Amino acid sequence: MTTDTDSAVTDEIPVDDDAAPALRGVTDRDAVRQAREQKVGERPGTLQIRENALKPRLFMISYDEKSYKEREFTSYDELRTYYLSTPQQQHWLDVRGYGDLPLMERIMNDFDLPPLQMEDVLGDYQRAKVDVFGDNQLFLVSRMTDFTPNCDIEDDQLSIFTGSNFIISFQDDYEDCLDSVRNRIRSGKSQILRSSPQYLAYALTDVVLDHYYPTMAAIGDYIETLEDDIFRGRPNRRLLARILRIKKDITRFRRLVYPERDKLAELLRLPDDVLPENIKLFYRDCYDHAIQALDLAESYRESISSLVDLYLSSQSNRMNEVMKVLTIISSIFIPLSFVVGLYGMNFQREDEHGHVMPMNMPELYSPLGYPITVAVLILIVTVQLVYFYRKGWLTND
Amino acid sequence: MTTDTDSAVTDEIPVDDDAAPALRGVTDRDAVRQAREQKVGERPGTLQIRENALKPRLFMISYDEKSYKEREFTSYDELRTYYLSTPQQQHWLDVRGYGDLPLMERIMNDFDLPPLQMEDVLGDYQRAKVDVFGDNQLFLVSRMTDFTPNCDIEDDQLSIFTGSNFIISFQDDYEDCLDSVRNRIRSGKSQILRSSPQYLAYALTDVVLDHYYPTMAAIGDYIETLEDDIFRGRPNRRLLARILRIKKDITRFRRLVYPERDKLAELLRLPDDVLPENIKLFYRDCYDHAIQALDLAESYRESISSLVDLYLSSQSNRMNEVMKVLTIISSIFIPLSFVVGLYGMNFQREDEHGHVMPMNMPELYSPLGYPITVAVLILIVTVQLVYFYRKGWLTND
Amino acid sequence: MTTDTDSAVTDEIPVDDDAAPALRGVTDRDAVRQAREQKVGERPGTLQIRENALKPRLFMISYDEKSYKEREFTSYDELRTYYLSTPQQQHWLDVRGYGDLPLMERIMNDFDLPPLQMEDVLGDYQRAKVDVFGDNQLFLVSRMTDFTPNCDIEDDQLSIFTGSNFIISFQDDYEDCLDSVRNRIRSGKSQILRSSPQYLAYALTDVVLDHYYPTMAAIGDYIETLEDDIFRGRPNRRLLARILRIKKDITRFRRLVYPERDKLAELLRLPDDVLPENIKLFYRDCYDHAIQALDLAESYRESISSLVDLYLSSQSNRMNEVMKVLTIISSIFIPLSFVVGLYGMNFQREDEHGHVMPMNMPELYSPLGYPITVAVLILIVTVQLVYFYRKGWLTND
Amino acid sequence: MTTDTDSAVTDEIPVDDDAAPALRGVTDRDAVRQAREQKVGERPGTLQIRENALKPRLFMISYDEKSYKEREFTSYDELRTYYLSTPQQQHWLDVRGYGDLPLMERIMNDFDLPPLQMEDVLGDYQRAKVDVFGDNQLFLVSRMTDFTPNCDIEDDQLSIFTGSNFIISFQDDYEDCLDSVRNRIRSGKSQILRSSPQYLAYALTDVVLDHYYPTMAAIGDYIETLEDDIFRGRPNRRLLARILRIKKDITRFRRLVYPERDKLAELLRLPDDVLPENIKLFYRDCYDHAIQALDLAESYRESISSLVDLYLSSQSNRMNEVMKVLTIISSIFIPLSFVVGLYGMNFQREDEHGHVMPMNMPELYSPLGYPITVAVLILIVTVQLVYFYRKGWLTND
Amino acid sequence: MTTDTDSAVTDEIPVDDDAAPALRGVTDRDAVRQAREQKVGERPGTLQIRENALKPRLFMISYDEKSYKEREFTSYDELRTYYLSTPQQQHWLDVRGYGDLPLMERIMNDFDLPPLQMEDVLGDYQRAKVDVFGDNQLFLVSRMTDFTPNCDIEDDQLSIFTGSNFIISFQDDYEDCLDSVRNRIRSGKSQILRSSPQYLAYALTDVVLDHYYPTMAAIGDYIETLEDDIFRGRPNRRLLARILRIKKDITRFRRLVYPERDKLAELLRLPDDVLPENIKLFYRDCYDHAIQALDLAESYRESISSLVDLYLSSQSNRMNEVMKVLTIISSIFIPLSFVVGLYGMNFQREDEHGHVMPMNMPELYSPLGYPITVAVLILIVTVQLVYFYRKGWLTND
Repeated sequence: MTTDTDSAVTDEIPVDDDAAPALRGVTDRDAVRQAREQKVGERPGTLQIRENALKPRLFMISYDEKSYKEREFTSYDELRTYYLSTPQQQHWLDVRGYGDLPLMERIMNDFDLPPLQMEDVLGDYQRAKVDVFGDNQLFLVSRMTDFTPNCDIEDDQLSIFTGSNFIISFQDDYEDCLDSVRNRIRSGKSQILRSSPQYLAYALTDVVLDHYYPTMAAIGDYIETLEDDIFRGRPNRRLLARILRIKKDITRFRRLVYPERDKLAELLRLPDDVLPENIKLFYRDCYDHAIQALDLAESYRESISSLVDLYLSSQSNRMNEVMKVLTIISSIFIPLSFVVGLYGMNFQREDEHGHVMPMNMPELYSPLGYPITVAVLILIVTVQLVYFYRKGWLTND
Repeated sequence: MTTDTDSAVTDEIPVDDDAAPALRGVTDRDAVRQAREQKVGERPGTLQIRENALKPRLFMISYDEKSYKEREFTSYDELRTYYLSTPQQQHWLDVRGYGDLPLMERIMNDFDLPPLQMEDVLGDYQRAKVDVFGDNQLFLVSRMTDFTPNCDIEDDQLSIFTGSNFIISFQDDYEDCLDSVRNRIRSGKSQILRSSPQYLAYALTDVVLDHYYPTMAAIGDYIETLEDDIFRGRPNRRLLARILRIKKDITRFRRLVYPERDKLAELLRLPDDVLPENIKLFYRDCYDHAIQALDLAESYRESISSLVDLYLSSQSNRMNEVMKVLTIISSIFIPLSFVVGLYGMNFQREDEHGHVMPMNMPELYSPLGYPITVAVLILIVTVQLVYFYRKGWLTND
Repeated sequence: MTTDTDSAVTDEIPVDDDAAPALRGVTDRDAVRQAREQKVGERPGTLQIRENALKPRLFMISYDEKSYKEREFTSYDELRTYYLSTPQQQHWLDVRGYGDLPLMERIMNDFDLPPLQMEDVLGDYQRAKVDVFGDNQLFLVSRMTDFTPNCDIEDDQLSIFTGSNFIISFQDDYEDCLDSVRNRIRSGKSQILRSSPQYLAYALTDVVLDHYYPTMAAIGDYIETLEDDIFRGRPNRRLLARILRIKKDITRFRRLVYPERDKLAELLRLPDDVLPENIKLFYRDCYDHAIQALDLAESYRESISSLVDLYLSSQSNRMNEVMKVLTIISSIFIPLSFVVGLYGMNFQREDEHGHVMPMNMPELYSPLGYPITVAVLILIVTVQLVYFYRKGWLTND
Repeated sequence: MTTDTDSAVTDEIPVDDDAAPALRGVTDRDAVRQAREQKVGERPGTLQIRENALKPRLFMISYDEKSYKEREFTSYDELRTYYLSTPQQQHWLDVRGYGDLPLMERIMNDFDLPPLQMEDVLGDYQRAKVDVFGDNQLFLVSRMTDFTPNCDIEDDQLSIFTGSNFIISFQDDYEDCLDSVRNRIRSGKSQILRSSPQYLAYALTDVVLDHYYPTMAAIGDYIETLEDDIFRGRPNRRLLARILRIKKDITRFRRLVYPERDKLAELLRLPDDVLPENIKLFYRDCYDHAIQALDLAESYRESISSLVDLYLSSQSNRMNEVMKVLTIISSIFIPLSFVVGLYGMNFQREDEHGHVMPMNMPELYSPLGYPITVAVLILIVTVQLVYFYRKGWLTND
Repeated sequence: MTTDTDSAVTDEIPVDDDAAPALRGVTDRDAVRQAREQKVGERPGTLQIRENALKPRLFMISYDEKSYKEREFTSYDELRTYYLSTPQQQHWLDVRGYGDLPLMERIMNDFDLPPLQMEDVLGDYQRAKVDVFGDNQLFLVSRMTDFTPNCDIEDDQLSIFTGSNFIISFQDDYEDCLDSVRNRIRSGKSQILRSSPQYLAYALTDVVLDHYYPTMAAIGDYIETLEDDIFRGRPNRRLLARILRIKKDITRFRRLVYPERDKLAELLRLPDDVLPENIKLFYRDCYDHAIQALDLAESYRESISSLVDLYLSSQSNRMNEVMKVLTIISSIFIPLSFVVGLYGMNFQREDEHGHVMPMNMPELYSPLGYPITVAVLILIVTVQLVYFYRKGWLTND
């Protein structure tokens, strides 16, 4: 009964005319915005191609212990024929670009790929995850990261289905970071040639994980640059914007790596008949690296929060500096201005009748009045400068 | 024995005259305030209709693999008759509005719905949850969200009871977000027609979850707008109010989605005879989406905290700017004022007897006194401007 | 052996003359301070009455399915006689006030209440908890909250012991929030009359939980008022004090509700022979409400932290405003003062010999000197006002 | 085999000449600093006495159900003889001060105390913990707290070994907080006399826990004092230093109590043959108290963070006040100074030829020039005062 | 089957010509940067030596219960011969420096060390961890810390493989902190001589852990110095930089110790045939120390956050002080300047016709005009000083 319903789910897909796209696993803002224009709520398991998807290119590497053959097929039929004619070989079908819905459906049906997972492949965003399907086959999603020159983390999805003698990988870009694995196969001596497709799937997962380190190193460099900039330069809003941007990058990176770690933990918990112990041994290594990547991301987070503290303190420092200049200049000159104003008063020395009023500003009539006044002014300035010097206001922090 | 007591609980309801309403599951402020005016502490399981509840409208979609029929009934009796006369079909009874207590009680009794759960349906607020009742039937609560133009998240409750050949959904509004499911049924080819009511319940849960994405996308857009506003415009309290409001929205959103995730996790843990594996397969997909929604909500939270940092820094920046203007103008003009005050002093050149006192302000009697003074003033200004320019105070950050 | 020791613990109590009070479960500051004056370290299980405890009043409601009788007893002997004479009825002995140690000990002994729990009843403060004792009997502690007009949360302890045909509730105040349960019994038709004492214990627990909502609603209202006050009025320290006080209330409320939730979770985990499934059904509902109360408390916490941000920003805003006034006035008038000071200088037009020195302040001798100067002053003011207007400093944020 | 190796570990101790001290469990700063001067990395299980350790004093209370005897022994041999001669009695050997390594080793060997635990006793710092050793014997570490008048938390270690008919307690100070337990024994009627040594160990643990409350109450009082000081007095750095010091105390207190709670939880999980159920009953009570102490400590932490907020806001408030005074005085007098400066200008009324230049400052030649000017000055002041009054700047917050 | 594949992994290594280094476990920034220049994605299990690795030095301590022999070998062959010729002895092969890939591979093959773990040894950074391999052998990684005079934490990796009669330790520096263990062996009486290699591995792990305390003590001292500096000196950015640097150190220290704790917990969970109970006993002690080290690190973290609060408050305090000076001087002298400006006005006493205008500044013509004015000035100053004194602005905080 259950089986019937189950297969019904699978079989129905080609004939179900539910047209609108199902919004699956979108977590990025752009992807989310785009999704608003699509109709939500459609039947799950409906394949749906994004509008701007690239036309698929089909690469296949076929190999056994002794030989390997690498080729780009322009026709899927040809590829299929070749695949069926070499059952003794192992195959890595490497699909780059999704922009051909009927082709995707043919691949899904020919290789018995489950529709819900296929939807995850073609959807906008899928966290790293692992699903078991069919006959102990694995569906693995990894996210490949890249740190662009203008400080954004780009991530592309790599989806892998394993089979008895094949793996199929899907990615939405023609460029990827998997060449080192291809080179190992091309070298003709790699262990991949002598191992099961599961080992190849592992090798791909591992190389994606390895690419997290350069991304993190770039982030680390950038944080160091920011630190220097705050200490050297003047704090300004552009600097804060850069700090907050790299903070976003780290948030994003963590959102990428946490599921990766969970995926690896789940792989390690799989029963041995699904994933043999000798493969798990390698994944254990990957798991270790994922943990270390998270470790580092966490410490970058703390660095960023230190940077924000530093920035705010730096801003406050600048205000202090501005205020000190104002205070020093005002404190020195305002009293001086008072003194000179004092002797600018017009109290009359003589009354209307020509009598001298001796109490009215006798200083003005002293022969040394002016020099003494100037001396007093100089004294005031000196006292203040000493005071400010002692307070340390005349030196920069 | 247990059964007796149990049924006693159920049976008693129509005759128990405990009048005051029981306050159940209120979590929203308005709802809470309203609740204060009600009497608390009444017997649980007492059905209670909110004052402002809409009059119920009854919709029914009846379908089997080959046909479907959709109709709004004005009389419950008629609906009931129709329902009883078509036992071979599956029925989706879609109740919108709760404002008729006797009708609610009749539905509860006729379809054997448990009173505690029925109370959750009609109460003010119920977190997303799942209960198993009766003969492996499910009671599911979801919360449908909407992001209003003035940046509030509205959420309505969708309560679903499943039965052997029916589901009953309750909502307190005539509008909902479930049309895409209705359309799939209307298309006549959807898998829903060929599956159990549990699949329809899943489809409704899924469409509610799908509607979280546009809400989140709207929040994301709004955060981006706020970021731009802070960078461009001047910080003011209205801006901060908007930041804090969107922060509240995110808090609220998380409070909606966390129970949703827990509900889905609980569904996945149900034994297979309550929820068959082939339905769980779909809920697993939902669970994945709920996790991704929470992920995104968490990263929005971090964005908001960055926004608050940015706002405060921006405010502090403005103060810096104000202080810089004050300092530059004061620093330039206060010394100038001193100089001109100096030569405004009235020290007398001649004493009472007409003798010249040569020490008293000889500058005033020099033919070039004024031009030289003006030159000194210009020099002071120039030196200060150079100083401030070097400090970077003359340019904006 | 174990049993012997165990009963020794229980039996010894009346004869043990360890006099000093044992400090049990004090968590409130006042209670803690009071406790300092008591001797700590006494033998556990020693009953101890607080000095200011009220004289006990004894109420009893006796009921069966058909009748109920409610009465306040002035003599415990009379109550005891009545209780013993009606073994077929169920009894709710409602003890209000603890101020009579021998009476408390008699009740403890007559109803076989365990001494450690009895100590929790009479002690200063006990978190919500559940203990199983004797013959599948329950000891339940709940905390009844009240939000006073001057924004404090008051909480009183309600302790309940269940027995085969009775429950005994203890509280230290004559007033409580349990009248709705009494009214349900008085109505003569409530399910309580037909259920076991455990159901009555549940009903009391539930009504206490229901009273959390008005408390929370009052807190919510108060937070909203504070928000309005910050936006409208001027920030001052009284306002901050109010924010921090309500923050304390929320902290306290959470400290009340977390143990309540844990108590309910523990009740749900009790084996069915201790707590039958049909009662657990109701507690599950309570548990749900406790979770929702915590949910709300958490979101109030976030609101408070937003309020503090808002307050600080508001304070900083005010400083900005003050500085702007200073800067505008200083920037306008300090240059003006310089100009008028300039023409207050006393450079002499003629030397001692009466020769004109044409370079010395010719402006002063121009017929339009003054009007032109005034025009320049007006120009300076205008330019500055335009500058400040453009900067937005002349308008309020 | 295992047993052999195990006993090897134990036996070897007296002959192993590894001289340098092993640094064990140091968590306090002073202890840590001291440890730097010691050689690290020595063999574990090496007994090591701190330099400043007090000379041991040996107290023994021996008791059975009917009698007890309390005595301080000056000679360990005498104590040992007495102990061996009264096997039917229970003994509490109370060692205060560690400063005698050979004695400590003799006690360890005579009573079969395990060396690793003995090292914990004599080491610098050991978190609260429980170990099971030998024949279901317990090793318990508690930390006794004291709140000194100058606001520091002092804590001393109490280490207890239980045996079949004895307990041995070690502490490094002659003073302790255990007198209430001694008094209960002295009273001759306490349950301790009739129970196993495990009960005495419990009683000691309990009395230590009870002493946390006065410490916490003192902290609570101090926090309240600080709050008042911030509201009343002026914020200064000494106040902040006090806030941060009490924050440290709370951090430290939590570090003390968390292990205590974990210890109690571990005790409750011990099998019944190690710790009988009737003793666990009492520890459950302790556990409850530890939880409540942590609860309170957590809410003190929140209070402290509120205090810091309050302090910072208070500091910012003071700056506001300073700025307001500056702004009011400057805003009032700077314009006035401009006006009086204006009429201090020396524009000449007559040119060289004695012709009147009527545009040059006719105000100065008006008979009412001065009174009108003074009136204008008064008007300016009035307008400004009204403006500031309306802004609320003239009243204190 | 599994075994085959497994051995394939091991055997293949010498012949696999995958050249590029595999980036393993890099968590430090420098290491990460360095890694960017390497090719990522290579086959796991490929041994890879860092460019700047030191040339290996080979030390061997061979011992049995009665004797020990310590020697540095210049030739590995000689060492190998010696090792093979003394199977009855236990050996500690102590490899310092990695800079010889063929030698590393020979050691790996000769002692049957697993390649994935060997890669961890030689890689850039590996968290503390434990792996079980081969015949119940352990692979242990510890990190040795050092606190440099300029406040950095340096950490070196110590990797240990245990075998039936040997342990092999690898470190990348010639200096280490293990001399105390060597000395214990050299003493000829240590328990190490009589125990299995597992005990020696424990002793090394323990001594590394013991070295955390001096590091922490140095951090604690430094924090105290910083606290004093903030209270005494003036806040400046260098001080903040030092605070943030020590914060980084603590973050780093925690990143070191958390894995160490996890490693120890994992050791304790190993089955008894892998790690005998009598060794676990010692590791339990280590675990306790690791917990206490983390405890202390956590409380240092809180101290740092207090320091940042203190610093910011101190900065704000300084601004207050600057503002107070400005305000006091401005408030005193600006009104004075107004008064003297007032009597600097040139209102004419006589009109053109020589008529006295009595309203025009009669003060100037009073014989006591000037003394009275000076008295008024002094009064103004006095009133203000009293006002400021009362406000407490004249004293320092």
